[in-house]
Amino acid sequence: MISFIDIPENSDFTIYNIPFGIFKKFDSDYTAACTRIGDTIVDLHQCMASGLFSKIALPESIFKTDQLNPFIALGKGVTHAVRTILQDALVTGGGLQQLSKQNKHILIPVDGVHMLLPIHIGDYTDFYSSREHATNVGVMFRDPANALLPNWLHLPVGYHGRASSIVVSGTEIRRPKGQTMPDGATQPVFGPTKQLDFELEMAFVIGKDSTLGQSISVDNAEDYIFGLMLFNDWSARDIQKWEYVPLGPFLAKNFASTLSPWIVTLEALEIFRTPGPEQNPTPLPYLQSKGKNNYDIRLSVDIESENGQSLRVSTSNFKYMYWNMSQQLAHHTVNGCNVRVGDLLASGTISGPTPDSYGSMLEICWKGTKPVEMPDGTQRRFINDGDTVVMRGWCEKDGIRIGFGECDGRIEK
Amino acid sequence: MISFIDIPENSDFTIYNIPFGIFKKFDSDYTAACTRIGDTIVDLHQCMASGLFSKIALPESIFKTDQLNPFIALGKGVTHAVRTILQDALVTGGGLQQLSKQNKHILIPVDGVHMLLPIHIGDYTDFYSSREHATNVGVMFRDPANALLPNWLHLPVGYHGRASSIVVSGTEIRRPKGQTMPDGATQPVFGPTKQLDFELEMAFVIGKDSTLGQSISVDNAEDYIFGLMLFNDWSARDIQKWEYVPLGPFLAKNFASTLSPWIVTLEALEIFRTPGPEQNPTPLPYLQSKGKNNYDIRLSVDIESENGQSLRVSTSNFKYMYWNMSQQLAHHTVNGCNVRVGDLLASGTISGPTPDSYGSMLEICWKGTKPVEMPDGTQRRFINDGDTVVMRGWCEKDGIRIGFGECDGRIEK
Repeated sequence: MISFIDIPENSDFTIYNIPFGIFKKFDSDYTAACTRIGDTIVDLHQCMASGLFSKIALPESIFKTDQLNPFIALGKGVTHAVRTILQDALVTGGGLQQLSKQNKHILIPVDGVHMLLPIHIGDYTDFYSSREHATNVGVMFRDPANALLPNWLHLPVGYHGRASSIVVSGTEIRRPKGQTMPDGATQPVFGPTKQLDFELEMAFVIGKDSTLGQSISVDNAEDYIFGLMLFNDWSARDIQKWEYVPLGPFLAKNFASTLSPWIVTLEALEIFRTPGPEQNPTPLPYLQSKGKNNYDIRLSVDIESENGQSLRVSTSNFKYMYWNMSQQLAHHTVNGCNVRVGDLLASGTISGPTPDSYGSMLEICWKGTKPVEMPDGTQRRFINDGDTVVMRGWCEKDGIRIGFGECDGRIEK
Repeated sequence: MISFIDIPENSDFTIYNIPFGIFKKFDSDYTAACTRIGDTIVDLHQCMASGLFSKIALPESIFKTDQLNPFIALGKGVTHAVRTILQDALVTGGGLQQLSKQNKHILIPVDGVHMLLPIHIGDYTDFYSSREHATNVGVMFRDPANALLPNWLHLPVGYHGRASSIVVSGTEIRRPKGQTMPDGATQPVFGPTKQLDFELEMAFVIGKDSTLGQSISVDNAEDYIFGLMLFNDWSARDIQKWEYVPLGPFLAKNFASTLSPWIVTLEALEIFRTPGPEQNPTPLPYLQSKGKNNYDIRLSVDIESENGQSLRVSTSNFKYMYWNMSQQLAHHTVNGCNVRVGDLLASGTISGPTPDSYGSMLEICWKGTKPVEMPDGTQRRFINDGDTVVMRGWCEKDGIRIGFGECDGRIEK
């Protein structure tokens, strides 16, 4: 498939992607749902106004919105049809080639818009599903011989996080203040975190409400998953260490999390399915997952300093996850907990098998014992004020490439 | 103050209360904001239609709604004025005595309506702020000599909970299934929880948005608190024990929590202020709280069995809290985490100093070693199918009584 719109080499936004987002024009309050092809935003409200979706019944103004939840809630039958119509219309000779000449508002250069947080997130859950990450943490903080806690191989450990402080890529992050207990101290102290870290994660967006009291089976779980995004679960390690026993992380995490602006649909990711790691011991029946339920998504993390220096500190892959999304969602609802359209479920830090694939500075610098060196010779054990953390995710196979764009956050200077 | 409406003896809903809620008529889809006096619902939308609030500028249809968030977001200047107008109008000879004769829809018998969950809850946080409760848990599961963990006296420990599964009083609760590791077993098993428990809590509702990156000081915290409610943080102890390390409770809690239907305002609770326990060690400055920042709210928990047997298993008081609400909110936001109107912050289990004031079956029956006996001779270590847990809360002082009504949940048979 070739689009009539120019697509730069190695663009994440090829004709095979067609993700969904929400944009705001720089020079007005106008917001709408959109997709992106190459470096061009496609305004779905204008597409609808021009009759592109006339074959499907869509509520009026469904795309003239600042959140995708009502669209997503229409169900995969509709969202898939919209995506297919867009894809067909964006190929050379497709419907939008003509329509976009008649309606000059349909196509907008990407540098003319702000991307907004595309969903209203009701509840946000974070898992802890990378075996390598959980093992690294266990080796560093507990017992190298028994790095994984007893429950870890039996269930996808997860916890609830803060929805209100999830921000879209590009939002500046304020270094959190908090209470810590320095090594050797007898009294806690208060001040800005000295150990500000990122966590490389992916998150999936719920596409269908479930009913309180009902479970979602592992085999049906993907029916409830609309798509995926990149996610940076910013963490203050010194605050976390002091506060987290016995009820888990709280202020160490809830000051901010950064989400990429584009939701890449499961349909777009279909050809990048791959089997997950072997699970031994075999999980209980409600968690048994057959077939290719992981996704081969390449991931990277760069630190960019104020003076323009850049260092790639991690190259990982979503396929490393021990517990896949279907297992996570089946576990989350096995007790009857309900999910709602727009809920966000994040993977937990995605670490691979080698140090260059670890998904946090805690692991990359091994508790600060192995600092990384920026091109200008300065060192990093954690993230400095003025640094920007840039996460990227993309898939490539058989000449097809799709990606997630960037998930960026700069620590305020 | 005497109302022209009959108020039964020991009613929670005296002229001094004037709480806010949302009702639905049995025989229609009509929902609206309301208050309650005695056993009478006062429809605020009808009050407004009859001109009762003509002195204040209120958005049209602010009370014709299924959630109080937009009303609460108008700020205490407005909500306090509405409450005062209602109070004045409900006394003998007050404006509603006449208006309610002209508009027959203003007053409705309480048994003609369903009470709904009155707020949309964006984020829900649960604290762990009763020293007696934390001590009991520490004695039972860790070390009696060091029952409190090192951080406990330095900060109000808290964690994020699930908003989607918070239901209003009266909603049946399905016993959750889940994964547990029985004592002595080597493999986890799956099935309904065998240790279904309640937690007696109070929760406060955020009345004002804060800004991401900004903290709320302990002295300003009550400006952000609209009012209080009763809260039952249902817990599955066997699931909790297996899952909670290292990231805290998850499926043990998120299957359901029950909230009472009435929000009692801070203004109504003003005369019931009382000093909290002495805090030693002195907290860090950002947590130092002067004056009467606890509230003397009497609490009770009854278990009612299917056959009509009833047993009061706890008589506690909200004044026992070691960390008060202002400290909880200051701590929650000290890192810049933002709060939004309708967010719910719960106290954690409220246990008093004696066994008859403990706030959970875990403590009352001391890990199942001291079962309680119902009037019919049957025993309870935890909650049975068909049992209803009834929480009540009320304040009494100088002949003034106000209360919260009931927070009930029955375990499905």
